[in-house]
Amino acid sequence: MDEEAKITPWEVTSTTTIDYLKLIHQFGCQPIDGALVRRFEKVTKMKAHPWLRRGIFFSHKDLDLVLNAYEKGEEIYLYTGRGPSSESLHLGHMVPFMFTKYLQHALDAIVVIQMTDDEKYYFKENLSLNEANRLTRENAKDIIACGFNPKKTWIFSNLETVGGSFYRNIVQIMRHTSGNMIHGIYGLDLNNSVGQFSWPCFQAAPAFSTSFANVFAQRHVQCLVPMAIDQYPYFRMAREIAQRLGFKKPATIQSRFLPSLEHAHDKASSSGQREVIFMSDSKEVVSKKIREKAFSGGGMTKQEHIEKGANLSVDVSYHYLLYFLDSDQELKHIAHEYKAGRMMTSEVKKRATEVIWEILKEHQEARSLVSDDVVQLFMNPDREFDHSRHPKNPVVDDLEEQHLGFHFDPYFRSSC
Amino acid sequence: MDEEAKITPWEVTSTTTIDYLKLIHQFGCQPIDGALVRRFEKVTKMKAHPWLRRGIFFSHKDLDLVLNAYEKGEEIYLYTGRGPSSESLHLGHMVPFMFTKYLQHALDAIVVIQMTDDEKYYFKENLSLNEANRLTRENAKDIIACGFNPKKTWIFSNLETVGGSFYRNIVQIMRHTSGNMIHGIYGLDLNNSVGQFSWPCFQAAPAFSTSFANVFAQRHVQCLVPMAIDQYPYFRMAREIAQRLGFKKPATIQSRFLPSLEHAHDKASSSGQREVIFMSDSKEVVSKKIREKAFSGGGMTKQEHIEKGANLSVDVSYHYLLYFLDSDQELKHIAHEYKAGRMMTSEVKKRATEVIWEILKEHQEARSLVSDDVVQLFMNPDREFDHSRHPKNPVVDDLEEQHLGFHFDPYFRSSC
Repeated sequence: MDEEAKITPWEVTSTTTIDYLKLIHQFGCQPIDGALVRRFEKVTKMKAHPWLRRGIFFSHKDLDLVLNAYEKGEEIYLYTGRGPSSESLHLGHMVPFMFTKYLQHALDAIVVIQMTDDEKYYFKENLSLNEANRLTRENAKDIIACGFNPKKTWIFSNLETVGGSFYRNIVQIMRHTSGNMIHGIYGLDLNNSVGQFSWPCFQAAPAFSTSFANVFAQRHVQCLVPMAIDQYPYFRMAREIAQRLGFKKPATIQSRFLPSLEHAHDKASSSGQREVIFMSDSKEVVSKKIREKAFSGGGMTKQEHIEKGANLSVDVSYHYLLYFLDSDQELKHIAHEYKAGRMMTSEVKKRATEVIWEILKEHQEARSLVSDDVVQLFMNPDREFDHSRHPKNPVVDDLEEQHLGFHFDPYFRSSC
Repeated sequence: MDEEAKITPWEVTSTTTIDYLKLIHQFGCQPIDGALVRRFEKVTKMKAHPWLRRGIFFSHKDLDLVLNAYEKGEEIYLYTGRGPSSESLHLGHMVPFMFTKYLQHALDAIVVIQMTDDEKYYFKENLSLNEANRLTRENAKDIIACGFNPKKTWIFSNLETVGGSFYRNIVQIMRHTSGNMIHGIYGLDLNNSVGQFSWPCFQAAPAFSTSFANVFAQRHVQCLVPMAIDQYPYFRMAREIAQRLGFKKPATIQSRFLPSLEHAHDKASSSGQREVIFMSDSKEVVSKKIREKAFSGGGMTKQEHIEKGANLSVDVSYHYLLYFLDSDQELKHIAHEYKAGRMMTSEVKKRATEVIWEILKEHQEARSLVSDDVVQLFMNPDREFDHSRHPKNPVVDDLEEQHLGFHFDPYFRSSC
């Protein structure tokens, strides 16, 4: 990561390639290597998600311990969340939810999803509490449309939920977190509001199962948190505090950032500064955005492209295919041909448009079925949650021969 | 107040007389003068409490507006609280509760009593959450024994109550309170825990009626907060925030500090550094404490006492009579005789012991009737609260001729 890169839970900017390996070291995490991906498949009896296979979820902390626990029949749960700040989610927002949905299935796990309406009220100017709370329910529809299991999923608004066992854990975290810790980790100081300053304690609490007496009673259940790597500081803090409080340390699994259309090394953002694809975009809008905005790694002229080929590492359409094109074979083919200058940017953009539109279309259909009543069902705290584990077929036939995990080069620099 | 005096919500120390008039100016409050005490009697149709008449509750903010509102038939409510840090309350702790109980009757008002188990967990080392929560219920018994109206009183533990409408208001306060405000008002900084740092926002919230949907629904009801003056900074902050949030500014009424036995100008404290009288003390213990520990303003020898008389301003037994002896006539007599050296310290101590034991005996009898079920009744949030106003006899016959309020000299320096 160059010196101008800035990675905090609220801001990700970089002028050159983000050095993810450096981030791993900086945060004290481990890379996800091929051996771990293979172990994941063996233990969960499922094929690894493309994002595991392709090094998009590239880093972890204690994922191996989670797999050990799962293997021994112990319960684990997943925690993810969303700051409701826009009417519709964009593609980048969906990455952790799509992956968590996959993990829910792979690990038969309860998922708790924190809607941080209080956080957005603290950090986003001119957002009222009521509006933050309304966006929570709108955004919950996009999340539910991913296909979470209603018997194993609780979506909750902080504004509606802080209290009881949750507040009890927040209080314990707030006592064991000093102002200097907050300043050191997040850069917040006396110029911030008390809401902003204490916010990380509210974000850390759901990583401890005792926060949710309605779901786990008093049981200490191991938590696994899937996230983009910029959120890791929260959980480094949560792990430190877990130790002091005698709680189980949350395990984590971190992804790269889905790039914005204009810049392969920025995180997609709905703040309006970068062009992104919203889940509510029409086919025409998606097509236009990719055609006009997606940064191309191809040559400036046709001649130059044929001679030098494309630079995959900065080509946003290719990045999107890396995320969303299912077929490894087709992906490899495109990488190979595009890099060699035999495939034009327009073709890659066309294919990216098709693949993305397919995802959006399915999402829009699924979301249209999510009524307010369905949202209420997912947000109802007072119901039975299904903690059982369902038998899976014991064989995964189509396991990949080789999984390189982090060491897999997503830009096919070496392999092509 | 001399330069060595230190007045914060957590600490009150002074090496000489606390200059309450200076505190009034420093905090931007008003003194309670005789005219206001008379108006209080007229509006509430009740004789002013001795602590109003004798300048013990000596300062206020907007008490006049509260009386205007009451006169117009508008509802007001009272808010007080307690940090549960000791098994039994001491006499000094009882002052705001005894006075609030009186105000509840005088103003036909709902009282909310915040038990700050979370605060004590933040600020008191080695206090566990469970212990803080247990002490809450023990201390609630002492509070209930004051005689609060169960239909008009809600006692709540923060640990059990933060959430819902209460958390919503806390969030709004936390957004509108900067770290610099907290530092400026309370001296807290990055070396404090996040719990300590954000605590004042949790203390301010009950001063806004919308925090308690269970009691007031969505109504904006004027709050009056009786307290010892060291707590005023919380409500200066609450008043500032009220303005920003469009809430009603809480009104306040402040008392002097009940002195510790050893020092007439310290605040009584249960921290163990100063000797105090606990509500659970036996007659023998009270007698021994006053005999052996209560600082005397009398002469060092009988001869000196007869010649020079007593210095009432430093005599703790006399101070206690000023608080707890009902009869103005007897108090004046004691002041006169003691100051002139015709009454001995031993006599004053004996009378103080009788008066205090009478209060303790009544309290202990009342407290023994407060079962866990009664505590539960007072702490139950889901019940009907009585917002009605009960007619009073329109005449107060025994109104004092003259009420001097703050300007009344509690040490009878001039009048004797």
